[in-house]
Amino acid sequence: MAFHYPNGQPYSNHETKQPKKQGRHTSPTTLYGKRGMSLEEEINDSNQYYRLRDAAVIYKKPTPIQIVKVDYPARSQAVIKEAYFKQASTTDYNGIYQGHYVDFEAKETKNKTSFPFQNFHQHQIDHFRACLQQGGVCFVIMKFVPLQRLFVYPASLLITQWDNQATGGRKSIPLAAIVADGFEIQYQLNPSIPYLEAVDQLIARHHKGV
Amino acid sequence: MAFHYPNGQPYSNHETKQPKKQGRHTSPTTLYGKRGMSLEEEINDSNQYYRLRDAAVIYKKPTPIQIVKVDYPARSQAVIKEAYFKQASTTDYNGIYQGHYVDFEAKETKNKTSFPFQNFHQHQIDHFRACLQQGGVCFVIMKFVPLQRLFVYPASLLITQWDNQATGGRKSIPLAAIVADGFEIQYQLNPSIPYLEAVDQLIARHHKGV
Repeated sequence: MAFHYPNGQPYSNHETKQPKKQGRHTSPTTLYGKRGMSLEEEINDSNQYYRLRDAAVIYKKPTPIQIVKVDYPARSQAVIKEAYFKQASTTDYNGIYQGHYVDFEAKETKNKTSFPFQNFHQHQIDHFRACLQQGGVCFVIMKFVPLQRLFVYPASLLITQWDNQATGGRKSIPLAAIVADGFEIQYQLNPSIPYLEAVDQLIARHHKGV
Repeated sequence: MAFHYPNGQPYSNHETKQPKKQGRHTSPTTLYGKRGMSLEEEINDSNQYYRLRDAAVIYKKPTPIQIVKVDYPARSQAVIKEAYFKQASTTDYNGIYQGHYVDFEAKETKNKTSFPFQNFHQHQIDHFRACLQQGGVCFVIMKFVPLQRLFVYPASLLITQWDNQATGGRKSIPLAAIVADGFEIQYQLNPSIPYLEAVDQLIARHHKGV
């Protein structure tokens, strides 16, 4: 029986070709995310994978909606007839992983050489700062769409660079800095974004006080 | 000068009429929650108080909505024209408190002698179970409306009793058991529901292995 990847490519004894972790770009079969899935869907999918295996309990928060008008038709469910999208006060994802409070945002860019700050909002930075102060594990999952490269980037570094803008600092984070200070994630089959491996490294670095 | 309760009733040395519950009601001003506020609003208010003082970062999650139709009028914001309420997969509140992942639900009952399980859903119990397994601090804030009594009740005990239903156990938790095993919260001015004090006790009990 022939198996196919979600992207339609045939399966061909893939595991023997898996990268050996050290050389990170040695995989002959580069997975490019599941067909037609947005970054958000890929992360939701990965969170579900982690929950089903009792690895972590992490969810995307629902989009906040300001409800203005609701109809209650007889014998059927309530219908919202007028509502508006609200600005979220927090980041999109949070939960618990092996005793750690985990809090993150997922962002993508079409840039190839740096990640622009315009992807972030002040309230997200403030939320990260408050969560870090309480001892949370906070980060951004950054995707460079043209490069199909994904990183877990620590919120603590994001905050520092965000704050530097006020004193003439850059308006973006160079890819080289993200490669140096973040943790690259390789797309795989299941979960498609195995970001908890990168989170393990982030926690380990934190415990080493690096 | 005349004082009034938040509910508009004049203050009149009210405490002498209160039941003497184990000496816990020694506050001369018994507060009954803020005027017209629901339990949810009182908790949101308390969470905001805690956030502003850097005591904890805890939010109510937005209500999940299934959006069916959105209009994008020229030069104005998107209007949701048809949407439906969805069942939440998790509990309503979560966040971080002094390094602890905190996860809870807030429920009220009109009963005076027991807290009925019909206030809970299987998915909430399952969510608590998964969060406890990861090391979270999980509980319910229970309000007996006619008694104006509030408790933090540990999710671990709730789960045990919920599971016992399948083998003929009770369909509710007796108030006496909640008094014995939970942590009573006294309404106060700010925050109106100081539940983190009860959470401190819950964490301390857990660390003692009780």
